[in-house]
Amino acid sequence: MEALFGTPRLAELLPRVRDFVSRELLPLEADHHRRPWAETFHLLDVKRKLVRQENLWGLHLPKSEGGLGLTLCEFGQLSEALARAPFYGHYTFNCQAPDIGNMELLARFASEELKNRFLHPLCEGNIRSCFGMTEPDLAGSNPTRLATTAVRDQDEYVVNGHKWFTTGADGAAFCIVMAVTNPDASPYQRASMLVVPTTTPGFENMRNIPVFGEAGGGWASHAEIRLTNCRVPVAYRIGQEGDGFRLAQERLGPGRIHHCMRWIGISEKAFDLMCQRAATRELEDGVFLGHKQFIQSFITQSRIEIDAARLLVLRTAQKIDEQGAAATREDISGIKYYVANIMLAVLDRAIQTYGAAGLSDQTLLATLYQHERGARIWDGADEVHIQSMASGILKKYGLRKPETGGSGKK
Amino acid sequence: MEALFGTPRLAELLPRVRDFVSRELLPLEADHHRRPWAETFHLLDVKRKLVRQENLWGLHLPKSEGGLGLTLCEFGQLSEALARAPFYGHYTFNCQAPDIGNMELLARFASEELKNRFLHPLCEGNIRSCFGMTEPDLAGSNPTRLATTAVRDQDEYVVNGHKWFTTGADGAAFCIVMAVTNPDASPYQRASMLVVPTTTPGFENMRNIPVFGEAGGGWASHAEIRLTNCRVPVAYRIGQEGDGFRLAQERLGPGRIHHCMRWIGISEKAFDLMCQRAATRELEDGVFLGHKQFIQSFITQSRIEIDAARLLVLRTAQKIDEQGAAATREDISGIKYYVANIMLAVLDRAIQTYGAAGLSDQTLLATLYQHERGARIWDGADEVHIQSMASGILKKYGLRKPETGGSGKK
Amino acid sequence: MEALFGTPRLAELLPRVRDFVSRELLPLEADHHRRPWAETFHLLDVKRKLVRQENLWGLHLPKSEGGLGLTLCEFGQLSEALARAPFYGHYTFNCQAPDIGNMELLARFASEELKNRFLHPLCEGNIRSCFGMTEPDLAGSNPTRLATTAVRDQDEYVVNGHKWFTTGADGAAFCIVMAVTNPDASPYQRASMLVVPTTTPGFENMRNIPVFGEAGGGWASHAEIRLTNCRVPVAYRIGQEGDGFRLAQERLGPGRIHHCMRWIGISEKAFDLMCQRAATRELEDGVFLGHKQFIQSFITQSRIEIDAARLLVLRTAQKIDEQGAAATREDISGIKYYVANIMLAVLDRAIQTYGAAGLSDQTLLATLYQHERGARIWDGADEVHIQSMASGILKKYGLRKPETGGSGKK
Amino acid sequence: MEALFGTPRLAELLPRVRDFVSRELLPLEADHHRRPWAETFHLLDVKRKLVRQENLWGLHLPKSEGGLGLTLCEFGQLSEALARAPFYGHYTFNCQAPDIGNMELLARFASEELKNRFLHPLCEGNIRSCFGMTEPDLAGSNPTRLATTAVRDQDEYVVNGHKWFTTGADGAAFCIVMAVTNPDASPYQRASMLVVPTTTPGFENMRNIPVFGEAGGGWASHAEIRLTNCRVPVAYRIGQEGDGFRLAQERLGPGRIHHCMRWIGISEKAFDLMCQRAATRELEDGVFLGHKQFIQSFITQSRIEIDAARLLVLRTAQKIDEQGAAATREDISGIKYYVANIMLAVLDRAIQTYGAAGLSDQTLLATLYQHERGARIWDGADEVHIQSMASGILKKYGLRKPETGGSGKK
Repeated sequence: MEALFGTPRLAELLPRVRDFVSRELLPLEADHHRRPWAETFHLLDVKRKLVRQENLWGLHLPKSEGGLGLTLCEFGQLSEALARAPFYGHYTFNCQAPDIGNMELLARFASEELKNRFLHPLCEGNIRSCFGMTEPDLAGSNPTRLATTAVRDQDEYVVNGHKWFTTGADGAAFCIVMAVTNPDASPYQRASMLVVPTTTPGFENMRNIPVFGEAGGGWASHAEIRLTNCRVPVAYRIGQEGDGFRLAQERLGPGRIHHCMRWIGISEKAFDLMCQRAATRELEDGVFLGHKQFIQSFITQSRIEIDAARLLVLRTAQKIDEQGAAATREDISGIKYYVANIMLAVLDRAIQTYGAAGLSDQTLLATLYQHERGARIWDGADEVHIQSMASGILKKYGLRKPETGGSGKK
Repeated sequence: MEALFGTPRLAELLPRVRDFVSRELLPLEADHHRRPWAETFHLLDVKRKLVRQENLWGLHLPKSEGGLGLTLCEFGQLSEALARAPFYGHYTFNCQAPDIGNMELLARFASEELKNRFLHPLCEGNIRSCFGMTEPDLAGSNPTRLATTAVRDQDEYVVNGHKWFTTGADGAAFCIVMAVTNPDASPYQRASMLVVPTTTPGFENMRNIPVFGEAGGGWASHAEIRLTNCRVPVAYRIGQEGDGFRLAQERLGPGRIHHCMRWIGISEKAFDLMCQRAATRELEDGVFLGHKQFIQSFITQSRIEIDAARLLVLRTAQKIDEQGAAATREDISGIKYYVANIMLAVLDRAIQTYGAAGLSDQTLLATLYQHERGARIWDGADEVHIQSMASGILKKYGLRKPETGGSGKK
Repeated sequence: MEALFGTPRLAELLPRVRDFVSRELLPLEADHHRRPWAETFHLLDVKRKLVRQENLWGLHLPKSEGGLGLTLCEFGQLSEALARAPFYGHYTFNCQAPDIGNMELLARFASEELKNRFLHPLCEGNIRSCFGMTEPDLAGSNPTRLATTAVRDQDEYVVNGHKWFTTGADGAAFCIVMAVTNPDASPYQRASMLVVPTTTPGFENMRNIPVFGEAGGGWASHAEIRLTNCRVPVAYRIGQEGDGFRLAQERLGPGRIHHCMRWIGISEKAFDLMCQRAATRELEDGVFLGHKQFIQSFITQSRIEIDAARLLVLRTAQKIDEQGAAATREDISGIKYYVANIMLAVLDRAIQTYGAAGLSDQTLLATLYQHERGARIWDGADEVHIQSMASGILKKYGLRKPETGGSGKK
Repeated sequence: MEALFGTPRLAELLPRVRDFVSRELLPLEADHHRRPWAETFHLLDVKRKLVRQENLWGLHLPKSEGGLGLTLCEFGQLSEALARAPFYGHYTFNCQAPDIGNMELLARFASEELKNRFLHPLCEGNIRSCFGMTEPDLAGSNPTRLATTAVRDQDEYVVNGHKWFTTGADGAAFCIVMAVTNPDASPYQRASMLVVPTTTPGFENMRNIPVFGEAGGGWASHAEIRLTNCRVPVAYRIGQEGDGFRLAQERLGPGRIHHCMRWIGISEKAFDLMCQRAATRELEDGVFLGHKQFIQSFITQSRIEIDAARLLVLRTAQKIDEQGAAATREDISGIKYYVANIMLAVLDRAIQTYGAAGLSDQTLLATLYQHERGARIWDGADEVHIQSMASGILKKYGLRKPETGGSGKK
């Protein structure tokens, strides 16, 4: 526990979560490569029962949903602990993306009807969900080009669109779909969020997209989806018409903290593996890998970067807890960009430290790299966050966006 | 063709090779992801016949084996052209690693008997081979720790050992195994090279090792191998007893040129894909990805690095052609390190330029990254080459290795 | 004030210090280039009186010397504030290096006699001092090669040696000299610290060494010094014979916090200048430098790094306050290396943002770069700190130094 | 001599130039720090006579001016050799910037009258000149904002303007001034080049601007200049009215080759110094700096980069020789950016290798860094060249500048 951000609740919970991960999940994950996903899902569902038995279920939930109401800064630290089992931890505790974000969103903004029908079973872990935002022909940095539409037809919306990289769509019970409902409104007020059950006629999961060669499955997959004349009740809308982007922003702030803390957990895991290798791989009599300056440089650089990342992220989490996500936009852009990059750098150094073994299935390092290379891309590419943070800073120096709408984005 | 390194032969051959790749291989490779390897092998064997028909078979072979006797500098440039189809080009022309290196080795150093039995069918493309050097418990940078042994028993060697990352072992007809035959000799004179047919009792291909999650198959795989009391005739030795490391060095010089030129071809492919994306992905009306400074930086940096890489490699190839590999050791270390790194950097930038699509199967970029991340590791890790080049330079300034054998390696 | 490290005392002092710097020092520093050092010294001595009048004198002193007894973490934050006037701030508040370190050292370890004679006038700002450690022929990373000797002759030591980069020797009243008193002891117990008044016969200030072309003067200079049969009373020794290295370590821990916080102050100054330029330099109608992605990248990268640096340093300062410097060695190495590098990177980006003006005397940026490039060298070069931090980490993984003494350093 | 670019003339000249530099200039330059510029100028004028005696005068001149008519690729290699004495070499051979560029410009584009009056004494080394382009309030990347004007008044132009970083203005006989003559023409056809003798009433050399703290003098300085109603004959115009930017481009192509080759010479000098230090600085018994991996990395990285730089630059020079500067614009941008950066990186590594000595006057390294930091700024900042090269590449992929004029620049 980083002393600066410790709380009594955390001091009580953190060792229990760490212990659970070490005891129940790490041994399982060691065989991750050799087991089909389907079997893994079954094994983890068994572990979920243990989580409940140990009263650790729902760490991320607000009190209204039966949770502990932890602050973002507290939960972030638990999220890091879960990421020591990066493939299994979050799912076992039912706080995997995008479900955790959807739970937050529904808890804050959905009607009672929607909560009863969708939020409660989600919190119980009885169903899963997905979030349909990204489109193949849409530059992520320009959401005003959203092509999915939802046209009102009496008490229903008729939804048409094409989404991809919809995480966890495979097996999900519903998808929160971002669609244009008000095409004539100002750019950021055109879209709304609709809950679309995946059983809706016209909702088609085309395939799980291979990411760095692996298509995955279940919550560990990213689907391509087509919606063709999907009809959903107007009551399945979250918030008001045109609220889509505003709600997406609300959802993203805490979501980025979750991601960042998970990435820090992954970084720590890779760091630990790298140090183990450095300390035990003998090159010649009495000379070990860890005696080499290049490897020492990997270790020192990684240690500093991980520590810096954690301090930056938890400080930002605390600021969100105190001032809300809107006041923290720049910081959130900064950490999202920074932590994604240092995680990949640490993973890469760890792979290099292991040599050929690092490419193989002897460790989880290469698999982690494959799964997480996307961190620099999804939820806003590096380039977008760099620009967005700088623009925020320069606004205080009096700089405005150039008059031609587009230019400011460059 | 880089004008500085052009020759009349090359001016004639290069367009034909490029044309073959564009016409016969690129359309096939576009579906690479969706086709099992086994089927691909069959398709490529058909293409091999076309290569013969177009009189392009054996571009890498010496005249003694019916080839054109191209210089390394000439063949290198053809190798780059083949790499525009990075998965299919070299195999279709029968110059995939490690067969090309094995052909060179056998042509130069093997007895007539070995040539007849192993080299000629290899040159014809009727069989494949592998090269058993790397061991799981052997730090690659210290070959004196080789654990595989070959004990003489009358007219045979009895070979025992454990190898891994033996490229192309799956389906190979024989393996050139590096084994200690003279354990009491000075460190670099302990090992010999033996041709071990894979049908030899005791030769076991344990598995194809997943590399970045993909186990591959056939020549596109890296196996783990165990040799248990494998008996091979003494006549299957290449060169003299104790020649192992010397021959390995002879094999590696040109081998690194081949690799580097292939990597440059891959880099050009990635560069081309990146530019296509930059020029056509519209972000908002009239503003394209290629108008953004970050992407411009990717492009300029990559263009300079690829050009630098090609000049450095071809200059080195020319130097090997003129002065031999021994006189070029520093340069070879330098290019191996440099080109592996710039290739991966260019691939990474291209992935980032495509965003989520770059992670997916929409391009070959992620697959290339998976396959080639090892470039910084095998055939000497970055760290080993950096050190080796610097030591060579500093020797001219009078610096010797420190007296404690080990320290000089650090 | 970074909220995480705020205290009531700091909340009261920090605005007053910032105000003093803005009001009294920044206007003066704006003409720094155009004024000879001698005149500057005079002007600053006037400002020192104001510091006393405003009850801000001695912020760094322990209560025993009439100070406030601030924690290192508190004083560090004031030190950053002083560094907004990087050339004048610390001197005006009498906490410039190496005097601040010497005051700490004498306060903790000197006899009453030495305190009366040397410490008190130093705390009053009536004299200055220097610290003679570095030698031209001594690799800084290996202090066991110290060549300066102090041979006991009854009640005196006879000191002979050659020092350089002795900061502030020009005009100093005394030098704390590190000299070998016990050449036969184990390596780290050979040296002692002796107070040598600069009026001692045989103490020769040879010259102020030009650093990046500027020799400076007074406390803003680095001298080359020769000691020839300098006689000092045995009572002028600080601590016991052989304590030299131990005391040097004690001195360095807090010293590095001071440096780091000063560097962070410099980084903030450069960052602020960079943002001003970015927001106001118009390139074409309505398009400003700050609209360019490259400049945005400079700004985002710098903001993240400076924030990370401050969090890392203050956390380390707090740890020293709580656990002492010995328990914090790794962290101290880490921040010394990290902060020196990010400061220079921020300065370099700021220079680049100003273009030709950044090279000129239009801003202080180039001068700061000249003065501070040494940050990566003195007080332990980057390479030494990287290695030292990694060794500390790997010790916890069971790795020891290799048996050949030397090898561990590589 | 890089074998790929050797010619018989070069094989004859290069050893003689190298010998001259080693024999006559390096010993002199060793005391550079300790000698005032004025004295240095005198010493170098003596050396100039030796250059003539050894028939090495005018290596850069076309045959029409009595030179050898070397190709750019040949002269470039001599320029590298001169840069082994970076402060003295080019001046002694009368090919220092900006005079070399002015000689080329006048030889190609000036009237006979201008040639007689200005070019011939320049070629003889009897006078010096400067080039007035940069203005303090003009973003270098946007020359259409030029504020200096030349208004026609019968047979004269009346010139008013403010220039800075006018290299070598101190002591120059004339300045080639870029001024707007046709304010209503299209942006790139507004300016003309005028020869303004520095004795013209109203031509004021305000000061030599300190660059990284050093104002220098004579040809080794950069002045701030004001022109107030300076009257020059219309016949002092070079080329036609409105030709200014076109001629500036013609001047820049070869000029960048000169700069790049000089920077490569400087890089080689720094590399050599770094290796000398690495090979001779003993850290402990038998362990030298060059045994450390960090230093080895400095050396390997630098060696590769310098070799790459030379190949890229000479290839570009050859292309200019064959196809002209216009066809080579992208390449020229690429090398200007690349070589400036690697030179500074090599200098920085060399300084770090020397430690405190590297900051001092013990070597020329810090002075070189001060003088050459501007390489990333003048003649087009990094950012401009990166963008310009990428735009050229992407044009071949069909990408045009965005319609809003400004946006394309971002």
